[in-house]
Amino acid sequence: MKILLIGANGTIGQAVHQELAARHDIITAGRNSGDIRVDLKDFASVQAMYAQAGAVDAVISAAGNVHFGTLADMSPELMGIGLADKLMGQVNLVLAGQHLLNDGGSFTLITGVLTHDPIVYGSNASLVNGGLESFVRAAAIELPRGLRINAISPSVLIESLPSYGPYFRGFEPVAAAKVARAFSKSVEGQQTGQVYNVVG
Amino acid sequence: MKILLIGANGTIGQAVHQELAARHDIITAGRNSGDIRVDLKDFASVQAMYAQAGAVDAVISAAGNVHFGTLADMSPELMGIGLADKLMGQVNLVLAGQHLLNDGGSFTLITGVLTHDPIVYGSNASLVNGGLESFVRAAAIELPRGLRINAISPSVLIESLPSYGPYFRGFEPVAAAKVARAFSKSVEGQQTGQVYNVVG
Repeated sequence: MKILLIGANGTIGQAVHQELAARHDIITAGRNSGDIRVDLKDFASVQAMYAQAGAVDAVISAAGNVHFGTLADMSPELMGIGLADKLMGQVNLVLAGQHLLNDGGSFTLITGVLTHDPIVYGSNASLVNGGLESFVRAAAIELPRGLRINAISPSVLIESLPSYGPYFRGFEPVAAAKVARAFSKSVEGQQTGQVYNVVG
Repeated sequence: MKILLIGANGTIGQAVHQELAARHDIITAGRNSGDIRVDLKDFASVQAMYAQAGAVDAVISAAGNVHFGTLADMSPELMGIGLADKLMGQVNLVLAGQHLLNDGGSFTLITGVLTHDPIVYGSNASLVNGGLESFVRAAAIELPRGLRINAISPSVLIESLPSYGPYFRGFEPVAAAKVARAFSKSVEGQQTGQVYNVVG
């Protein structure tokens, strides 16, 4: 399979690369690194990335920023960070890619545990993740030509505990390698419209 | 209780008014009608509405537009309709209102069945509803002064079947009066962080 991996340089992106590289041809993309540079917030940049990559069989996203901060200090502009980046950035991948992927191809997006299990500072992340998961279910029933779409929803990463641990006390953390296997299941399996929750 | 009801002129808004008016003091607001005119997309307009309403004990939203259309024809701009209106419009109510509602007050937002049960043409609605429901769970754990927040997620309305029925074949429709009782449960009960699914 020819796989376009966005966010390849992140902790999850690297683990996904390691999981899939032995079996597939991977093109990496990212904001500041990778075979192709892309700004997911910019639809024209997403379209240019697809043009550069050529026809692919799978698109994997392990990318997207949100704003972490208290609800008390949240503004429409701060909420907009996650909406434009992690949410619409990944939706842009699907809106543009639905016309370009090879028949039977797949999209695998990233969400996160905060959809159902909120934390303080996490309202932007929860909103974004919940929106993405419902979008995945909706897009799955409309995608043409056998295209599929799933989301991977990991708990906090073991690798991220030094920085994020204090915000996720009591959450069962998960290794990036285990998250990567969920991406493999989405890409190399045949399910669609699913959200794979990955916990430790 | 003094209740601010936004979208009071819609099918659900009218049913909520009928359910609650005998027991409470209701201020109506809407895009084109009501005691106060408000554009939920505009944070300054939301703030002006609160200033005009004065201190209230409950905010009810039965308002918000999304774009209905095929995924194939969906663009970032069309997705943005629901993001700016039904999603951020209602989030704006909470971001501004958290500092203004009386202690122990509540927000009750509206989502819909498409969060979990998608239809063709519904990807914008699903995304918006899913985002709102996760936001409600997240906001509930950060709201100060005993403030509460819930969402009401109705199936297609019996009253809307003449226009929406063909898109919701097989969905169990629900009367607006039953949806209104869920709003009553949210406002007059003490639960928080809940999504009340209302089916026929």
